[in-house]
Amino acid sequence: MRFGIPLQDWVDLSTGINPNGWRVPNLPGTLWAHLPEDADALEQTAAYFYGAAEVLPVAGSQAAIQALPLLRAPGRVGVPEVGYQEHAQAWQRAGHTLVRLSDGNPEGHPGDDLERLDVLVVINPNNPTGRRWPVQTLLDWHAGLSARGGWLVVDEAFMDTTPEDSLAPYSDRPGLIVLRSLGKFFGLAGARVGFALGSADLRARLRSQLGPWTLSGPARFVAQMALADADWQAETRSSLRRASAGLADLLGGHGLTPSGGTDLFQWVRTPDAARIQDALARQGIWVRRFDRPPSLRFGLPGADADWRRLDSGLRRDASSAPIRRAPTAHSTAAGPSAGYRDGSHCEAETP
Amino acid sequence: MRFGIPLQDWVDLSTGINPNGWRVPNLPGTLWAHLPEDADALEQTAAYFYGAAEVLPVAGSQAAIQALPLLRAPGRVGVPEVGYQEHAQAWQRAGHTLVRLSDGNPEGHPGDDLERLDVLVVINPNNPTGRRWPVQTLLDWHAGLSARGGWLVVDEAFMDTTPEDSLAPYSDRPGLIVLRSLGKFFGLAGARVGFALGSADLRARLRSQLGPWTLSGPARFVAQMALADADWQAETRSSLRRASAGLADLLGGHGLTPSGGTDLFQWVRTPDAARIQDALARQGIWVRRFDRPPSLRFGLPGADADWRRLDSGLRRDASSAPIRRAPTAHSTAAGPSAGYRDGSHCEAETP
Repeated sequence: MRFGIPLQDWVDLSTGINPNGWRVPNLPGTLWAHLPEDADALEQTAAYFYGAAEVLPVAGSQAAIQALPLLRAPGRVGVPEVGYQEHAQAWQRAGHTLVRLSDGNPEGHPGDDLERLDVLVVINPNNPTGRRWPVQTLLDWHAGLSARGGWLVVDEAFMDTTPEDSLAPYSDRPGLIVLRSLGKFFGLAGARVGFALGSADLRARLRSQLGPWTLSGPARFVAQMALADADWQAETRSSLRRASAGLADLLGGHGLTPSGGTDLFQWVRTPDAARIQDALARQGIWVRRFDRPPSLRFGLPGADADWRRLDSGLRRDASSAPIRRAPTAHSTAAGPSAGYRDGSHCEAETP
Repeated sequence: MRFGIPLQDWVDLSTGINPNGWRVPNLPGTLWAHLPEDADALEQTAAYFYGAAEVLPVAGSQAAIQALPLLRAPGRVGVPEVGYQEHAQAWQRAGHTLVRLSDGNPEGHPGDDLERLDVLVVINPNNPTGRRWPVQTLLDWHAGLSARGGWLVVDEAFMDTTPEDSLAPYSDRPGLIVLRSLGKFFGLAGARVGFALGSADLRARLRSQLGPWTLSGPARFVAQMALADADWQAETRSSLRRASAGLADLLGGHGLTPSGGTDLFQWVRTPDAARIQDALARQGIWVRRFDRPPSLRFGLPGADADWRRLDSGLRRDASSAPIRRAPTAHSTAAGPSAGYRDGSHCEAETP
């Protein structure tokens, strides 16, 4: 219960997770009883799906984000100023020095170009801005870094709708690490399944750092089925593209033309971000707000009713905006999700 | 297919996992779609079950075993010579110096007593020997260690059948860490759910090291239900006690009187360990062998047919032992489990 609205009545557009994810069937009970079977075909299925030579399953890409900084001596690490902040936190916690890159671009950084970085973290496409870097640009950056023993880490959590932009096919090159996840496109955030793509040496070190049996047996089973379901994947790419275009239209119709996005969310820069978030929240619609720059990220509504609620919520906000500007007693920054982080960590994002 | 026997025809007695574990019902599909909900009641349910003030869920106790050594500056760490070897490996990998303790007893160690350790790892009850240390002895050791800023780590993976011997009620004391798991008693090894019990400070540091969302949503749900099922737990304690006593009788009837054990396995010291393991394997029965000292660990058979196969397997071995002593072409150390480790890591155990 937040804003006087029961949890189940919220329309949660704050996550960027596919609202119509891969549907999990009932599973054989034996999956729970036995140690997760490394001899299933999960690795091969994932490698085929990603177009990579080999992959290492991890308990969500977050697990790899936590562990990678422990595999290098402290150095200078470029991280995007806007984007999933767990990267920066993990590198900092491990004693590395952060270089905050505006728009994630090391070449545009005054006095701190690629030459002075040991590691560059790129979120591609960026979340929330949606910016995508060309494959060749990233490969050039990687070449520069790896020549000096450096790393390029590419977080491709939102890449499944644009696989042609993935660096997965190059991930056997030394010093290139690509992170994928089943949380967004497949809508399986609860399964905690991700993959680290990299050279054999890097994968071995990461595996040793993370230890055995990091994925549950049922999660391995579900992931393998979802990754093999090419029909669902093709249909879902089409339907997400249509839905995201529809969302951009809807937002534009309310004067909130997106500045960027992907097929899983739209990103709107607006100085009214805080007010709009609050106004929607009072109508049981939760969107993600960012402070630097002031902006909102809208995930895709799922059911038709959710689309209508967003539409009418924005209309009502526009018509009553002037009288709502003053803060009210029960207006808080906390949304419906208990684990939600806002305020000073406003850019924090669910992986 | 090993030893010419299809995988599904093996009786696997090598794990110490309850063959009649908690039965997982069909789960709501939404568990897979959403980020694991930290606002469920898993922590409280587990704390009540263990009799601890607070607990930290971890992705199997193995996850805590991997992470704990990273939370201390390198020091001298006492580990039991016989027992689950992942403890020793994790501390060593993190740069600590190992002190191998015979029978896990720091007071019996020549020249390396408790006074010279920074951390003591106790597996209680020990696996495979079944040795249990009295609560007061462990608390005395803990007092000595913690007075100097040291830690006592107690791995209680097999404690669920003898909760009165657990240190869980004392786990809020600084420097005391207790590890529990749902893998053995509950038979949920595939779920990867364990708990670290310790002071608030220690849990916070471990949580930070492991990162958010380490358990899958379905695993949290299943674990909470199993931990709350007091009727099943009481019945299972009784039935495991009967089964283990029955296993000890059966083994004794074949001249293999156990030297130790728990309600989940029996441990037999015998110079014929290798031969007996091999003879049983040719009959599709897989047991765990240890080299130091030469011994076998027998997990509980589940179905009646499995009990009969073990009985007749041991009878057949005894009657034909003399003519089987010579090694044969298809005799190998590898058993039916693909992930099984033997040979030089013979004591390695599934957590």
